[in-house]
Amino acid sequence: RADGSRLWATIHETARFGGTPKGGINRLTLSAEDGRVRDWFRDACEAAGLTVSVDALGTQYALRAGKDMSLPPIAFGSHLDTQPTGGKFDGVLGVLAGLEVMRSLNDAGIETRAPLLLVNWTNEEGSRFAPAMMASAAYAGEFTTDEILAKRDVAGTTVAEALDTIGYRGGEAVGERAIGAFVELHIEQGPILEAEGKTIGVVEGGQGIAWFDGSVEGFESHAGTTPMPRRRDALLGLSEFALAAERIALAHGPSAVATIGEATIQAPSRNVVPGRVAFTMDTRDPRSETLTAMEEELRAAAREIGERRRLSIVLERIWRKEPVPFDPKVVAAVDAAAEGLGLSRRRIISGAGHDACNLAAKVPAAMIFVPCKDGVSHNESESSTEGDCAAGADVLLQTILRLAN
Amino acid sequence: RADGSRLWATIHETARFGGTPKGGINRLTLSAEDGRVRDWFRDACEAAGLTVSVDALGTQYALRAGKDMSLPPIAFGSHLDTQPTGGKFDGVLGVLAGLEVMRSLNDAGIETRAPLLLVNWTNEEGSRFAPAMMASAAYAGEFTTDEILAKRDVAGTTVAEALDTIGYRGGEAVGERAIGAFVELHIEQGPILEAEGKTIGVVEGGQGIAWFDGSVEGFESHAGTTPMPRRRDALLGLSEFALAAERIALAHGPSAVATIGEATIQAPSRNVVPGRVAFTMDTRDPRSETLTAMEEELRAAAREIGERRRLSIVLERIWRKEPVPFDPKVVAAVDAAAEGLGLSRRRIISGAGHDACNLAAKVPAAMIFVPCKDGVSHNESESSTEGDCAAGADVLLQTILRLAN
Ligand SMILES: NC(=O)NCCC(=O)O
Ligand SMILES: NC(=O)NCCC(=O)O
Repeated sequence: RADGSRLWATIHETARFGGTPKGGINRLTLSAEDGRVRDWFRDACEAAGLTVSVDALGTQYALRAGKDMSLPPIAFGSHLDTQPTGGKFDGVLGVLAGLEVMRSLNDAGIETRAPLLLVNWTNEEGSRFAPAMMASAAYAGEFTTDEILAKRDVAGTTVAEALDTIGYRGGEAVGERAIGAFVELHIEQGPILEAEGKTIGVVEGGQGIAWFDGSVEGFESHAGTTPMPRRRDALLGLSEFALAAERIALAHGPSAVATIGEATIQAPSRNVVPGRVAFTMDTRDPRSETLTAMEEELRAAAREIGERRRLSIVLERIWRKEPVPFDPKVVAAVDAAAEGLGLSRRRIISGAGHDACNLAAKVPAAMIFVPCKDGVSHNESESSTEGDCAAGADVLLQTILRLAN
Repeated sequence: RADGSRLWATIHETARFGGTPKGGINRLTLSAEDGRVRDWFRDACEAAGLTVSVDALGTQYALRAGKDMSLPPIAFGSHLDTQPTGGKFDGVLGVLAGLEVMRSLNDAGIETRAPLLLVNWTNEEGSRFAPAMMASAAYAGEFTTDEILAKRDVAGTTVAEALDTIGYRGGEAVGERAIGAFVELHIEQGPILEAEGKTIGVVEGGQGIAWFDGSVEGFESHAGTTPMPRRRDALLGLSEFALAAERIALAHGPSAVATIGEATIQAPSRNVVPGRVAFTMDTRDPRSETLTAMEEELRAAAREIGERRRLSIVLERIWRKEPVPFDPKVVAAVDAAAEGLGLSRRRIISGAGHDACNLAAKVPAAMIFVPCKDGVSHNESESSTEGDCAAGADVLLQTILRLAN
């Protein structure tokens, strides 16, 4: 068993890096705060006897030797970056529970057959640089390292520059390190486990995701002198489109979602009719064909609104991640570990994207979920209990032992 | 007659201060660029033999002596600040045509009975600091100087700090200087004169204006895991409210307008359901009772949307300017001047707010409009012709001569 109270203390110890007054964390990837938590993580891993290295995209790997070093390591972990108004658990739990697994094995003097590898993936959140989970995608071969290094944040800074600024552009080539299997512990970020009173989600896969960059182009004009029917108001175009996206998602049933998370009026002024709005859109569904259908309907809505309001609405898809099924054997190992511990559980599909979803394209992978309060995540009030975190760490430990021996 | 080609050259000479690649001007009030055009204006006035002084809110006054210095001066002018994507004529025409009036009188060796006063009012646009036309409102006694000095822009800078930064906090007490009458030449900023083929608008008054600061408060949550019906999406609340405002304005007939010019999501992120949006709203109508009715309907819409979507929508009125009738004698002087010059003309109500609307509370005031292309203003493509600007300057000169002799 893992030491749940040490895990809980560690979670609260690292929450100071980017901690917010409302009790959340603002630790955007590759920010100074992210640099500080990475330094802390490296030191903690080294103190636990692990060998730490960094790849060319900043991902940190901490290796614990096994009896048979010719075997590829069993890997686990998650991410230490957060949303701008993120919580203390999203990603953090998976990394620090992984550290707790290493510490517990040390305390118990257990040596596994395969080596163990704890990973802190760069930019899981996708808030500063799109897409989300970019380092694990590069690891799995979905992007080249150079493609990722060239991505820019809204300030124009590239991933390469941001890595250099905090000193985390490592020497290891991305994707070259062998991994035998990958297991990620995470809070559910949704309401299902809590509603059903289950402690463990045995995650069978992740839903599909499509991300878009969009813009609405109208014409700036005087708020006092331009009659309503003459206006080409970009914000009203965005408003209609946002409501259309909501209707389209609702029409595709309970699992489909669509979100406009960012919207910025260009050169805004109180007495100017908005001439241009840039926005982002996120759509998801567990079914690939629903993702495609939603995109078609969104494009049709954009066309109709644009023509009627004399606006040009552009929707560019910048990322699409197909629904991911996890490896049945690793899923079974998670299930068996939870059963062995006598924990209540259910099979579940992840609504969020995770590094494990990218890893699954290259190595056997699966995930463990624990409940979070009211299903709330990407919010400073995100919350989980010490008991649930400990249970998750126990399942992680037992799954790892099954896979590594 | 004024020298139309000299006026045209002067307009283009000053357009370099804050000039944009698209041919417009970005010269927010009290910015460095505004400081530069003020220096230019002071030098040009002094070169024309005028005595320049600055009041405690930065408004510049350039005096030309008259035969009877016991008479209060006949004043004219407008403003040299612009919107962030402003044009070359809004405000600028009124100030530089005033300079041209002074230069033409000098060239013709004409001395008027009353002295003449050319004014460049601080912050007419209201884009950086709200409300618009704040210096002329303080002149007219609607605000105290201290109230205005304490207003802040979005960066938190006060008017007092901004004045000090460019060295334009003058010594003269605001509102103490006597003015006999005020005449403002301006582009129409609307489509009426052009549509009817008229050169001069004889402005009878300005419509009412109400400005609001608003916010929509929902709850940040994960874009991938929060089912649509559980969301409390602040952007969707704003979207519905923006469309409701459009419907309400349309329902109040052709003159009513409502505009959301600024809208900012707090801590935006692609994969976070927006939790809070701040916005501004501008409503106008020539009828005071319509302004009131629109506000009531907007508040009802905000309540209904907020309740249905579990959002808190707040609407704070930060400014209300009643419809303003201009002085019949000054209006008649404008009309007679245009008639004397043989220019086509019509009576008109101003859709935009102007410093003359504030002055009207304290001194006899009126305005002269000239057409602008497609009625477009608050846009870098704002455009007027050399001939129309010259005609406006001629009417201004003739009106001034009528009032000052
Ligand atoms: N787990 C998580 O919140 N990942 C961020 C990427 C996403 O938006 O799903
Ligand atoms: N004339 C003009 O555009 N003034 C700015 C204030 C307003 O919005 O009406």
